[in-house]
Amino acid sequence: MEIFVINSGSSSIKYQLFSQDSSSPLCSGLVERIGQPDALITHKYRQHDEEKVLYIQQQVPDHEAGMQAVGELLTRDGIAVIRDSGQVGAVGHRVVHGGEKLTGTTVITPGVKDKIKALYPLAPLHNPGHIKGIEVSEKIFPQAVQIAVFDTAFHTSLPEKAFRYAIPDSFYKNHGIRVYGFHGISHQYVSGEAMKYLNHTDAKLITIHLGNGCSMAAVNGGKSVDTSMGLTPLDGLIMGTRSGSIDASVLLYLSEQENYSTEQLTTLLNKQSGMQGLTGHNDMRDISALYNNGNDRAELAYEMYAYRIKKFIGAYAAAMNGLDAIVFTAGVGENDALARDLVCRNMDFLGIKLDNAKNSEKGNGIRDLSSPASRARILVVPTNEELEIARQCRQLLGETTGR
Amino acid sequence: MEIFVINSGSSSIKYQLFSQDSSSPLCSGLVERIGQPDALITHKYRQHDEEKVLYIQQQVPDHEAGMQAVGELLTRDGIAVIRDSGQVGAVGHRVVHGGEKLTGTTVITPGVKDKIKALYPLAPLHNPGHIKGIEVSEKIFPQAVQIAVFDTAFHTSLPEKAFRYAIPDSFYKNHGIRVYGFHGISHQYVSGEAMKYLNHTDAKLITIHLGNGCSMAAVNGGKSVDTSMGLTPLDGLIMGTRSGSIDASVLLYLSEQENYSTEQLTTLLNKQSGMQGLTGHNDMRDISALYNNGNDRAELAYEMYAYRIKKFIGAYAAAMNGLDAIVFTAGVGENDALARDLVCRNMDFLGIKLDNAKNSEKGNGIRDLSSPASRARILVVPTNEELEIARQCRQLLGETTGR
Repeated sequence: MEIFVINSGSSSIKYQLFSQDSSSPLCSGLVERIGQPDALITHKYRQHDEEKVLYIQQQVPDHEAGMQAVGELLTRDGIAVIRDSGQVGAVGHRVVHGGEKLTGTTVITPGVKDKIKALYPLAPLHNPGHIKGIEVSEKIFPQAVQIAVFDTAFHTSLPEKAFRYAIPDSFYKNHGIRVYGFHGISHQYVSGEAMKYLNHTDAKLITIHLGNGCSMAAVNGGKSVDTSMGLTPLDGLIMGTRSGSIDASVLLYLSEQENYSTEQLTTLLNKQSGMQGLTGHNDMRDISALYNNGNDRAELAYEMYAYRIKKFIGAYAAAMNGLDAIVFTAGVGENDALARDLVCRNMDFLGIKLDNAKNSEKGNGIRDLSSPASRARILVVPTNEELEIARQCRQLLGETTGR
Repeated sequence: MEIFVINSGSSSIKYQLFSQDSSSPLCSGLVERIGQPDALITHKYRQHDEEKVLYIQQQVPDHEAGMQAVGELLTRDGIAVIRDSGQVGAVGHRVVHGGEKLTGTTVITPGVKDKIKALYPLAPLHNPGHIKGIEVSEKIFPQAVQIAVFDTAFHTSLPEKAFRYAIPDSFYKNHGIRVYGFHGISHQYVSGEAMKYLNHTDAKLITIHLGNGCSMAAVNGGKSVDTSMGLTPLDGLIMGTRSGSIDASVLLYLSEQENYSTEQLTTLLNKQSGMQGLTGHNDMRDISALYNNGNDRAELAYEMYAYRIKKFIGAYAAAMNGLDAIVFTAGVGENDALARDLVCRNMDFLGIKLDNAKNSEKGNGIRDLSSPASRARILVVPTNEELEIARQCRQLLGETTGR
């Protein structure tokens, strides 16, 4: 049985198709700028052991047209990866926000859709796009089981002391204002891989997901016990364009003294801050090039970026009263040796000591970068959210997953 | 030479008078509800080794009238602590916000007053009251040197990576938006006392000031290197009525979805949150009584309060790459054994192990509550901001201070 994994945004659809017996997808792709005149489909597939890419510019007026086009590509003569779309037994949908009620991977029923819609106020940029993806997928793959995998679900194990804010109870009870945490699919995947690698199912891990969005999780014995993002993906670490944690009074100050509107503040903190605000760039490769050229702003930004991570490592080691390994993942975490170096410098009090040579080497798969003197392991574990979604779908459907 | 220490608020004046040769004040008191019909002066003084208290209800239309009344009390027949007000050689003013330019204790000149006034937008609730206090003090004690001691000054040693927010540079450069930190006079005093007690001037200390306002500082070799309050005293720990750290998106959400105004948000986060918001009480003695009666809300609130502190301890141990002692101070820190117990539980990974018997004993002065197995010392150091101000005044005036 093939599993089709979808991440449907407000104007894009990302997808991968997994067969039963491989952790590499049969094909993957992206439909972007849906509804705009310059819509583009990028479709990657393997043929005779070579990776091929197809770029298709065509009218994609809406999500339905996009999904139709993708469905057709899966079976198109000459590049088909399956014979007919009936082979897709399940469609796994990444859904950012499951709130408190959707705590695990679940078959999508009308009731589940209502719950996802009820969370629109908490995830206005994400959940509406997911619902679109689900509804067109029900049309295009009518025979498949539709399954939702939530980016918040892994963090529903947080204890109340970690997920509540110190504001009146009613805001939690009536408005659902609490820490939800995100990147849960990634934190779950890499912590699972790390536990297997360490052969230690009770490990106290700190997973550090550094992509364009960045977050950390304290994972104790496979359960998330704290995480750095909050009600929304704005809080916590410094990110590509997001500020991360900031004194809430900064918003009050800018609103009162400088007449900032809510919309302006939202844009400022989500789109113009973080590494972008500090350096004028949001791609860490550009910023590390500047750093290496002695650029002051890049130096400060990298130091701030690493310092914030260091402090969360200390905080989570305190929260778990121990630390067996830290796990770097996602684009920056997997590839940016400078960021890892700055995070691990002067951390031997917490048992962290990097092997600088191993850190600078390129590599694939899981890598251990700790020096022999390091009491805590320092791992790089490439994340794979799509594979995790496919695995969770199979698990839900009762198939063996080899996990 | 006597030193008069003043903390002048928008409608109150707190004062203490110190003589050269004692760390106990000759007298102390409070003028409150200035400008209201029920103004009250509470004046405490020692006579024949007994502490006496005088309550005076009289018209106090403004700060000048209040200061005049206090000046008269110092020399009033029968209760005089000095012969005439000319003995007051210096008046030490506690000033909450010194910004980036006022980095140490300083003689107040017209230029200094202008700088304090320029900070009104950053400290609208505090600096205007301080300026009132300074100006009436110049009239009532014209012979005395007027000196400002800033609550932000101790934290001006923070490195840039710790004091900058990840928002565009211009907000720092044009608006002064950065971490300032507060309670600096207290953190400086208790870290100084702790270093003397430990006989260790390079100690890595974490000072934990828990009063109605709460903050922590990482103090490395006598210098503050990080602190939990930010642009304002709202950020960081959970306090009596303040939320401490919270995802900035909570404000955006309440403003967008629930039409909260900036003023309502300011009141919510500063006056209705923290322990008050979680339990309906802001006095920790009431809340610990509820906790001991098994009240669920009090239990959760205490756990959240302690958990936040734990995480800052871990973060600062990471920031300093070490930890020699944690120092509890201020009303709750000095007196609330339950809070200290919850903070120190399951913290042996960081070298913290409390002696429960010592923790439950009442005591005066500096106390060491660590068990023999504790690698880090756990101290209680009673704070004394007024004495610290008097000492800093003497130091500035070149007098020996015995410190």
